[in-house]
Amino acid sequence: MDYQWLIFFTALLFSATADASGCANDGFDVVRNISEVEQGSFGRAGLSHATLAGALMHGLKEVEVWFNTVAPGSGTPIHRHSCEEIFVVLKGSGTLYIAPSNPDLDHPGTPQEYPIFANSTFHVAGGIVHQVRNTNEHEDLQCLVAISKPPMKVFMYKDWFTPHTAAKMVFPMFWDEKCYQKHPKKDEL
Amino acid sequence: MDYQWLIFFTALLFSATADASGCANDGFDVVRNISEVEQGSFGRAGLSHATLAGALMHGLKEVEVWFNTVAPGSGTPIHRHSCEEIFVVLKGSGTLYIAPSNPDLDHPGTPQEYPIFANSTFHVAGGIVHQVRNTNEHEDLQCLVAISKPPMKVFMYKDWFTPHTAAKMVFPMFWDEKCYQKHPKKDEL
Repeated sequence: MDYQWLIFFTALLFSATADASGCANDGFDVVRNISEVEQGSFGRAGLSHATLAGALMHGLKEVEVWFNTVAPGSGTPIHRHSCEEIFVVLKGSGTLYIAPSNPDLDHPGTPQEYPIFANSTFHVAGGIVHQVRNTNEHEDLQCLVAISKPPMKVFMYKDWFTPHTAAKMVFPMFWDEKCYQKHPKKDEL
Repeated sequence: MDYQWLIFFTALLFSATADASGCANDGFDVVRNISEVEQGSFGRAGLSHATLAGALMHGLKEVEVWFNTVAPGSGTPIHRHSCEEIFVVLKGSGTLYIAPSNPDLDHPGTPQEYPIFANSTFHVAGGIVHQVRNTNEHEDLQCLVAISKPPMKVFMYKDWFTPHTAAKMVFPMFWDEKCYQKHPKKDEL
């Protein structure tokens, strides 16, 4: 009979072990080594994304933090979201493109450009169309990103003159898909 | 008459210049060099705090990011807050103390202890009593901290057996005082 107890306790051990690449309902380590957090490109060329602490993966409700690395020449789509977003640039440099402060009602229009650099910080208010690009051809751009109201829902623009009404909704985000399918969560809207 | 115009334009120039150490209504640079962001101990021995992007300083409503450095032997008070908090440890090491998951109803009780280290991340759910200490006597502990629902209101405990009803409320936070006095903002509660 002893081996049955062994199987039982082994199963218990595995079920209780935190899964670094799992979703909130599967459990997770209280303190996580960032180099062991699952990172991926999620089909986005030039991107490496890791959710350090998030809604679908760790059960947070109000804030989420990402660790993103963007290869030279790559960047985010031109996009907007209703949540607020704060960037801290850890390495590299690039350009923040942000819709003009007096935007056209139909489309974002020619963006304002701001250089971003290692040890800099900036934020994007809710609803503002923006893009972050690694415009430094020699070095990766590495950022920590904090967002409110996770999980994020994004509206993506083909270019700065795409009408707001033609922006394409993406939800859940690429990196949220796995946990969203596994443990569906109420949409933010 | 020319010097009057000079005075006028000089005044205009100064009023339009972003103030790195200012409050939201005074304006701020879109992209800020973290080494130029105002840092201070705010009367807390062993602490250096900078608000990289925040409610009272930059007009954010839903999320705030801090850059905190804690000297060996120092740490946060034992405290709780209704907002969620995510830490990313950039340098050094220390200990996260967190109230037991089955807490006493009267007081937090003996905390669980978790080692924290450079390149680690952890979060604290709303309402959970916790403390972060630099228990490494050789090195500063440097963290980025993201919080939801700024500006933060804290309840501080003298020790882990202080009754919840005796926890001392602090609002605004030490680093929020200047802007709170200058541009009063509606309390979160």
